[in-house]
Amino acid sequence: MTYEQLSPADTPMTPQQYGVGARFTLAVYDSDYPEIILGALRSADATGLTVETGDISTFIGGTEQRILEYLCAVIAHASKSGAHLSASILLSRGCPGELLCELPAGVSALGAEPISLGQTGVRARAHWSLYPLLDGDSAGEHMSPIYAAVDQARADGIYSGSDHYATRLDGDLALVLRTVANAWIGVGKTVQHVVTHLTLSINSPSPITD
Amino acid sequence: MTYEQLSPADTPMTPQQYGVGARFTLAVYDSDYPEIILGALRSADATGLTVETGDISTFIGGTEQRILEYLCAVIAHASKSGAHLSASILLSRGCPGELLCELPAGVSALGAEPISLGQTGVRARAHWSLYPLLDGDSAGEHMSPIYAAVDQARADGIYSGSDHYATRLDGDLALVLRTVANAWIGVGKTVQHVVTHLTLSINSPSPITD
Repeated sequence: MTYEQLSPADTPMTPQQYGVGARFTLAVYDSDYPEIILGALRSADATGLTVETGDISTFIGGTEQRILEYLCAVIAHASKSGAHLSASILLSRGCPGELLCELPAGVSALGAEPISLGQTGVRARAHWSLYPLLDGDSAGEHMSPIYAAVDQARADGIYSGSDHYATRLDGDLALVLRTVANAWIGVGKTVQHVVTHLTLSINSPSPITD
Repeated sequence: MTYEQLSPADTPMTPQQYGVGARFTLAVYDSDYPEIILGALRSADATGLTVETGDISTFIGGTEQRILEYLCAVIAHASKSGAHLSASILLSRGCPGELLCELPAGVSALGAEPISLGQTGVRARAHWSLYPLLDGDSAGEHMSPIYAAVDQARADGIYSGSDHYATRLDGDLALVLRTVANAWIGVGKTVQHVVTHLTLSINSPSPITD
């Protein structure tokens, strides 16, 4: 499929056509990990989503709100086992397809409404990176949206510090996911291809490092 | 420190000044994870590196060759426990500092020699993404270096397929890390700020999905 086939100029693209989606790996540090992971995946409502689980990671396609609801539900369910876990999450928009991006550069950026999530009671700590993938003929530079996103994390009360290559977040799992997703959606209003990566740590026995 | 203090025009920057480094989270799906992770970290030679382990991830600063040797040694050691594990790895160059990038945009890109690693006998499968972070006044567009890197993975014999947002790699752990690192170094010859993310899966009992 080409962009022209997908989206005549007068028809807004769907999130799927625009490549809105996630890829995540849920790691459970416990010998009972198969039951915990499969139980968490089974517990979450995948209505309206495309979910494809492989041996390396799981793909989720759908709307921003539904993708984040699903991620939050899966991770919260696994966390309630009490096991230490980590999750690496990638959110992407503006470059559908697999190896080849099926949208040409310079398509109008497709924003979305901010998402909302109900609190989970699960404390998550995270390292977060945001990548606005500008091309040479795009306006702007890539650090300003990153600084703005970090300011928003401070305003949301979950900023915990800055480390090399990543911002540290600390708060309810739902707040962490909301801040990350809404920054990704927000930058996506002006930049076509935006990716964000998050590494979550939950129930860690390690001393917290600040 | 400012860029001017760090690097007069006639003094090449060190990898540390240029922000060459890694951040990784090693996840072990086994109730004996503390011993396996701490044993792996202890087993690897950290000579010449800055290694800072926190509760979310571990930072490694140093030269490209030494960073990759260390990562390969830690992960190979943990793999030999037989436990299923995953690792999320971020390699970054061209943007030192923490929240604020301490180099202005438009610094001459600092390349490096390709790295080499001895084979480990550990099979790794991975999802890989490469992000050349161009600014609006940079030449070029960001997808071409990604396509070129994937072509190199094919030539290296470890390309296993393309999924949404990531290229699938499959081969000896050392070959996977070498291909990823050398693509990151290669793009770094012309682009200042280059980040790559890799999610590795080792000893998975899940059926391999192609």
